[in-house]
Amino acid sequence: VILAGGSGTRLWPLSRQNRAKQFLPLLSDKTMLGETLDRVGGDLFGEPLLVGGVAQADMLGEYEATLILEPVARNTAAAIALAALSLPRDATMLVMPSDHVIADRDAFMAAIAKALPLALQGWLVTFGIEARGPETGYGYIKSGEEVGDRVFEVERFVEKPDRATAEGYLAEGGYHWNGGIFLFSAGAYLDALKTHAPEIAAAARKAMDDDGAVDADAFAESPSISIDYAVMEKARKVAVVPVSMGWSDIGSWDALYDISDKDDAGNAAPADAVTIDSANCLIRADGQTVAAIGVEDLIVVATGDAVLVMPRGDSQRVKEAVEALKAKNAKVL
Amino acid sequence: VILAGGSGTRLWPLSRQNRAKQFLPLLSDKTMLGETLDRVGGDLFGEPLLVGGVAQADMLGEYEATLILEPVARNTAAAIALAALSLPRDATMLVMPSDHVIADRDAFMAAIAKALPLALQGWLVTFGIEARGPETGYGYIKSGEEVGDRVFEVERFVEKPDRATAEGYLAEGGYHWNGGIFLFSAGAYLDALKTHAPEIAAAARKAMDDDGAVDADAFAESPSISIDYAVMEKARKVAVVPVSMGWSDIGSWDALYDISDKDDAGNAAPADAVTIDSANCLIRADGQTVAAIGVEDLIVVATGDAVLVMPRGDSQRVKEAVEALKAKNAKVL
Repeated sequence: VILAGGSGTRLWPLSRQNRAKQFLPLLSDKTMLGETLDRVGGDLFGEPLLVGGVAQADMLGEYEATLILEPVARNTAAAIALAALSLPRDATMLVMPSDHVIADRDAFMAAIAKALPLALQGWLVTFGIEARGPETGYGYIKSGEEVGDRVFEVERFVEKPDRATAEGYLAEGGYHWNGGIFLFSAGAYLDALKTHAPEIAAAARKAMDDDGAVDADAFAESPSISIDYAVMEKARKVAVVPVSMGWSDIGSWDALYDISDKDDAGNAAPADAVTIDSANCLIRADGQTVAAIGVEDLIVVATGDAVLVMPRGDSQRVKEAVEALKAKNAKVL
Repeated sequence: VILAGGSGTRLWPLSRQNRAKQFLPLLSDKTMLGETLDRVGGDLFGEPLLVGGVAQADMLGEYEATLILEPVARNTAAAIALAALSLPRDATMLVMPSDHVIADRDAFMAAIAKALPLALQGWLVTFGIEARGPETGYGYIKSGEEVGDRVFEVERFVEKPDRATAEGYLAEGGYHWNGGIFLFSAGAYLDALKTHAPEIAAAARKAMDDDGAVDADAFAESPSISIDYAVMEKARKVAVVPVSMGWSDIGSWDALYDISDKDDAGNAAPADAVTIDSANCLIRADGQTVAAIGVEDLIVVATGDAVLVMPRGDSQRVKEAVEALKAKNAKVL
């Protein structure tokens, strides 16, 4: 189950309101969604289920998958409910975002293999990403008692911490990033949803017809809550499989720089770019030739109608540009 | 007589091999050539003569002027000879580049009025731009004896000096920048050319037919030499009119920044640009929306197919990017 309904402009100007990150070829000539689908090919997996918004139906239709189209966005708990309702109760669902990178697929597969026995016993399993630093942009998962081979009962989920708190988590140990990837049976999820977020369960059930179509009015009645808030933080029998698999949500230009190939001067730049006396820059373009002369630690992103220039390390400030452009009613969002 | 044959890539990526600076709207919605033509409207002037290359015939044809098309480029001495040959010997020619800015037209007109009596007496008059600093990018003109009202015989022309020499000129006084603007009669110029550069005079005369067409083979025989080298530095009766008229040749992005309107933060940027926590930047775009966040003293130039990013103050280094792109056979030159 691939959640492809997300939108966002954290990678503006490359990502747009109608062309979210999952539809961008960020790391290869395939889109992030295409890479995500490749990751779940092979005998272990059934046909992928793509859950996304009706506005993205055309783009989603270009992929080989069963589509479930949300008439309105109601966050992940409801989206996953639609997928669960379309499957047999004993189907095991691997739920994952459509716009993350997992560089080490073998490690991912091994983690799934560890999670599977628990999922088959009715556990809701999440994957805990090895925390590579005191990041404040992710939620954290604290491991409790070991309930399988390197699988732990979740002691608690914690929301995005401040820096000091995150440093404390790393020092203490047993904390992992919450990457939003889950493994559970459809029945276990729907049961937990009914217990902890009955309005979501009811709305999804009412909205979904036998052909997989979703009624707009009925679905709109669902509260818009994430699976974490609605289910994972409240349910019993929630487990975490720690995993180090080269994961990134590429949530910013800085994150993309970190995982990009770089030349000897530390520049991550297209082959046709010209970098003279320039170092440690991220250069992205949508066909434009970029020339950088005498600049360091700069992010330069060019598209046909917009250009972003800012220092590396500050790329969360892209949202300030997006807000300013919104205030101007700019057409480049 | 407007010399519109120049090419150059000092303002790359906006200027291109086939779209030189004179065809760009750098300071208003008019091209530099259009602004230059406006400057010589009115009763004082006859119909403008545009001298340019055959490759630019279409672009030149969009302006209201008589065209003289050079089949091959042979520098300014020969180009001006073609113009002189198309005019009566007693016509007074104001010769000027097509891609300079003169912000104070009144001062320019006053300088022309001072130069005119001498031109009518057979002098070759040049205009000496008030030196606003020890620039090393211009030739200098040293004034000698006063031969009219604030008009001086030229003591000597000096080529682009090094910094220390330029500083000496400013300290000594009597030096002005050579802006490449001239006033003289057609006959006086042709006579001086015949004396000091007879091959150019002969080639131009042989090439030019009665209808203003220029024979390629004959014109190609002309040496390719500037009017300064060929005539002004050698002729007698050469005068200079010092003038302060807001002149710039906009020979670099830094020069354009200097004469551009700026906002309170010192940014020269299009109205649709977004500048956040950014100061003293030059931002140019060809329709693209540029967002700059947290950067200072940066030059950002965007076109549909190319983007330049470099620090202010170093814009002569654009040529390094141009050379690198040439070496790559890039299509964006």
